[in-house]
Amino acid sequence: MKMVTGGVTAALGFKAHGLSCGIKKSGKPDLALIASDVPAPAASVFTRNSIKAAPIIVSQEKMRFKKIQAIIVNSGNANCFTGSFGLLYARRSTELIAELMNINSDHVLVASTGIIGRPLAYKKIEEAAPRLVAGLSPQNGKKAAQAILTTDKKIKETAVEFSLGGKKVTIGACAKGSGMIQPNMATMLAFITTDCAIAQRLLQQALCSAVEPSFNSITVDGCMSTNDMVTVMASGLAGNKMIDAPGKNFEIFQKALHVVCLDLAKKIVLDAEGATKFIEVMVTGAATCRQAKAAALAIANSNLVKTAAYGCNPNWGRVAAAVGSLGLKVSEKDLKIRFSSFAKKNITMTVDLNLGKQKATVYTCDLTLEYVKINGKYN
Amino acid sequence: MKMVTGGVTAALGFKAHGLSCGIKKSGKPDLALIASDVPAPAASVFTRNSIKAAPIIVSQEKMRFKKIQAIIVNSGNANCFTGSFGLLYARRSTELIAELMNINSDHVLVASTGIIGRPLAYKKIEEAAPRLVAGLSPQNGKKAAQAILTTDKKIKETAVEFSLGGKKVTIGACAKGSGMIQPNMATMLAFITTDCAIAQRLLQQALCSAVEPSFNSITVDGCMSTNDMVTVMASGLAGNKMIDAPGKNFEIFQKALHVVCLDLAKKIVLDAEGATKFIEVMVTGAATCRQAKAAALAIANSNLVKTAAYGCNPNWGRVAAAVGSLGLKVSEKDLKIRFSSFAKKNITMTVDLNLGKQKATVYTCDLTLEYVKINGKYN
Repeated sequence: MKMVTGGVTAALGFKAHGLSCGIKKSGKPDLALIASDVPAPAASVFTRNSIKAAPIIVSQEKMRFKKIQAIIVNSGNANCFTGSFGLLYARRSTELIAELMNINSDHVLVASTGIIGRPLAYKKIEEAAPRLVAGLSPQNGKKAAQAILTTDKKIKETAVEFSLGGKKVTIGACAKGSGMIQPNMATMLAFITTDCAIAQRLLQQALCSAVEPSFNSITVDGCMSTNDMVTVMASGLAGNKMIDAPGKNFEIFQKALHVVCLDLAKKIVLDAEGATKFIEVMVTGAATCRQAKAAALAIANSNLVKTAAYGCNPNWGRVAAAVGSLGLKVSEKDLKIRFSSFAKKNITMTVDLNLGKQKATVYTCDLTLEYVKINGKYN
Repeated sequence: MKMVTGGVTAALGFKAHGLSCGIKKSGKPDLALIASDVPAPAASVFTRNSIKAAPIIVSQEKMRFKKIQAIIVNSGNANCFTGSFGLLYARRSTELIAELMNINSDHVLVASTGIIGRPLAYKKIEEAAPRLVAGLSPQNGKKAAQAILTTDKKIKETAVEFSLGGKKVTIGACAKGSGMIQPNMATMLAFITTDCAIAQRLLQQALCSAVEPSFNSITVDGCMSTNDMVTVMASGLAGNKMIDAPGKNFEIFQKALHVVCLDLAKKIVLDAEGATKFIEVMVTGAATCRQAKAAALAIANSNLVKTAAYGCNPNWGRVAAAVGSLGLKVSEKDLKIRFSSFAKKNITMTVDLNLGKQKATVYTCDLTLEYVKINGKYN
């Protein structure tokens, strides 16, 4: 397996496009379309927030057909808490794309990201949709990756290649992140495409398993979004023998998907709102995996730990206090805390609880003046 | 009942003093002593953090005697995660005060606040102790209130007077707060004194009940301290008939204690690190009190809600997302969110969950540039 250049259109059978339709006042790109040449077996995970945005509700409904041929995504407006009109607009945009592409609207998903509670300017989407469809191309993956961003500074793309029975298989993806990032199923928008031939059931299994140590192991601000969604489509055009049972080929695919998800997840943290540090929190010696993850998250979500990292101030007492706040049976003499240098951009914090043998890693960033500035004025 | 001027020495039978012994590099006051003329029936609540500071461990031991005659408090060093020497120093300081005051060391408590993991400069406490004891006076309550502060900008004192069977009873108190504030039993240091004659059992009951809606209902940064402690001493010198059973007099006392605790708790939030806003989060229509409190805390601890308040940006979508993150069965159309003006210093956020009839109020502040600056460099 090797990392290669490219993104959501790196695999065979995928096209994309992105443009500005005027939802963002800034005039920056805000509408994207990702499409498969064929109705592709697909898998998705969605936010666990009870307040779900309209596109999440609509896309969850569509996922019962287990195939996707297109995903329309807007940024700049979350279309969340927008009542019956919000739902109507989310549904309509899938029908609009289906009509323009001449495909089944059951196979069109919709995603949105941006501010909550503002009416979606659906008219703008409607006007721009023909241009969006006309621009679909394997060369325009980056334009789609650009158009899904909100406060992100950087485009987030990744792609890997590997071989299955002599056939070259590719997985490509793009994602957006930045703020309101706290693990719970999916934690942002990520669109993954592959030409691998794989049964839908196994694709869903591989996705769930890849999401846990990647998108579900990052936190920027402990805030869970209403719009999160990770989707993978498998066009099957690589020509490999269909993966329809667990085994070696499934493992290879799974590993590659894991690499793609982890790479995107790390890119989200690296480009988190205002972040100046990338922090890897490793908790070892836990009694259970769940405990390890809870401890790692408690540390990663501590504003005091995050501001200490920002200030290059290796204040390990705050790490001890964060772990202790969980009420675990840890005492001062059991806890082993180790830090890499706080002067560097990449910081590693390792905490051994001495309660057992399980471990977990969570990725986060520092809490900075810039984060406060960005979120003080974002609207 | 009326609020009166004064603090921890407002009630009959209490003296205090505070001075600088050199623990703080700044030279600011860092050593306080609060004393009762008689061994006073006392009640305490302590942090639930598993990582407990040495003074917490020692004071918890002493509380089995259920009486306090003196409390020695240092600021600038938490004496937490300081091993066997930390414990030794905490014990010794109680013995030292007992010797100098010629009282029983079983009745001397100790408290510390400041940075975690640094050896306590016990020598400095030892040297200053005679001056500290010599300075004890009913006039020096404010000096004690000053000497227990860390990043606090303001002294936090409160006192109330009320009448029990024709006798004037007073409750006075001082507290420190500022950062690392998240409810769980006690959440900072607070020392309360009263001349009320009341049985220890009822004093403990009144304290536990007063702490829940006050100190346990404030949050600055969601970070639970290792050193929290709230203590109340009752000298019994007011001359009222001993309260030794529930009833009208106990209720009057309880109500007054509640007022004192809530006033101090609000003062802690008002003076929180970097805070520019005081935010009251009221959740109504919850199925249970626990659920109401959880929802209020989720909102109050959301960095996105807190930065929105800082930016005078009434982004209620973030409140909805915070409530939704708890996985409650709330939907968009049930949730009623109301804000007072974000332009003012005092903000009220009211959220009706429409799930039942319970409610809870939590007090918090905004997340500001100043908070990040303070905690980036604090060490």
